[in-house]
Amino acid sequence: MKFCSQCGKDVALTIPEGDDRERHVCLHCSTIHYQNPRIITGTLPILEDRVLLCKRAIEPRHGFWTLPAGFMENGETTEQGAVRETWEEARAKIKVDALYTLFNLPQINQVYFFYRGTLTDINFGPGPESLEVELFYEHEIPWQELAFPVITETLQHYFADRKENNFPFRTKDLIRPLNKPLIS
Amino acid sequence: MKFCSQCGKDVALTIPEGDDRERHVCLHCSTIHYQNPRIITGTLPILEDRVLLCKRAIEPRHGFWTLPAGFMENGETTEQGAVRETWEEARAKIKVDALYTLFNLPQINQVYFFYRGTLTDINFGPGPESLEVELFYEHEIPWQELAFPVITETLQHYFADRKENNFPFRTKDLIRPLNKPLIS
Ligand SMILES: [Zn+2]
Ligand SMILES: [Zn+2]
Repeated sequence: MKFCSQCGKDVALTIPEGDDRERHVCLHCSTIHYQNPRIITGTLPILEDRVLLCKRAIEPRHGFWTLPAGFMENGETTEQGAVRETWEEARAKIKVDALYTLFNLPQINQVYFFYRGTLTDINFGPGPESLEVELFYEHEIPWQELAFPVITETLQHYFADRKENNFPFRTKDLIRPLNKPLIS
Repeated sequence: MKFCSQCGKDVALTIPEGDDRERHVCLHCSTIHYQNPRIITGTLPILEDRVLLCKRAIEPRHGFWTLPAGFMENGETTEQGAVRETWEEARAKIKVDALYTLFNLPQINQVYFFYRGTLTDINFGPGPESLEVELFYEHEIPWQELAFPVITETLQHYFADRKENNFPFRTKDLIRPLNKPLIS
């Protein structure tokens, strides 16, 4: 951020009075521009013994497999956002069962929500951000070609929990060693 | 948002190509300025049979009672943010047990997290955003003077769950009728 979104003049990084960290503050109108983490919300879509995955048509991780998920929008709930992303990325309709996994990724200022749900329609296919959309049995999951650790963790929990037919909500912080790239 | 934070020129509300909703888009450098929901994170601090509440020194709901909570910051987890806010608003130290309640408030673009935890120190007191900080037994809770519905819901769940000594995670969408004020 270089300019004030309210008045168009210069901003500077400074600690506002009564605050304890640097913010972008307008030198002209004094507006404080806060920056906050963003929520990514998605689903774990199930059809009988199979899980739906999307092959990414966009960076980062172009060509890798992911669960349908994306940035939560203003005016929606995390669950509504997850259902919307499932439609946008996989043209799939889903009945949500429950919030299943929640991850904090503080190094990239993101919080991930995944809702477990059941496909209500066998019709699906790639939206503009996907190359392919496919259903996978457990033994078919492309573990080495999954896009993000949050996808791997959610799938691992699911296949373990399915053996017990019990799907407890789980939350985890994924703190990445500083020398590792953000996305692998 | 009236001006581009990247180049300082005018922005306009328009639907970018490939998108399906209006965004603030720079007429000069074409940057799309997304606006997303924010996370408020806090705690339900317990000391034996009592719950800690803070009387708000700031608007909205000045003078009403709340659980310590505030906007999640970049670079922290939701749990770290909750512990930080507990210190900032109540000068209280807490050992977190688990994520307890999660609320979506889509009309004001907010998602609330409350962590259940135990005070580790009997010392506490008002931070700059609190007028008073007090411990309350269940029969002392000022139900009519609680600041926000998410506070009332979290406390109601807690006192009900305490009878069973079982504190399941709960998530709820608080959709407000359009003719009601946002904060009462
Ligand atoms: Zn300004
Ligand atoms: Zn611009």
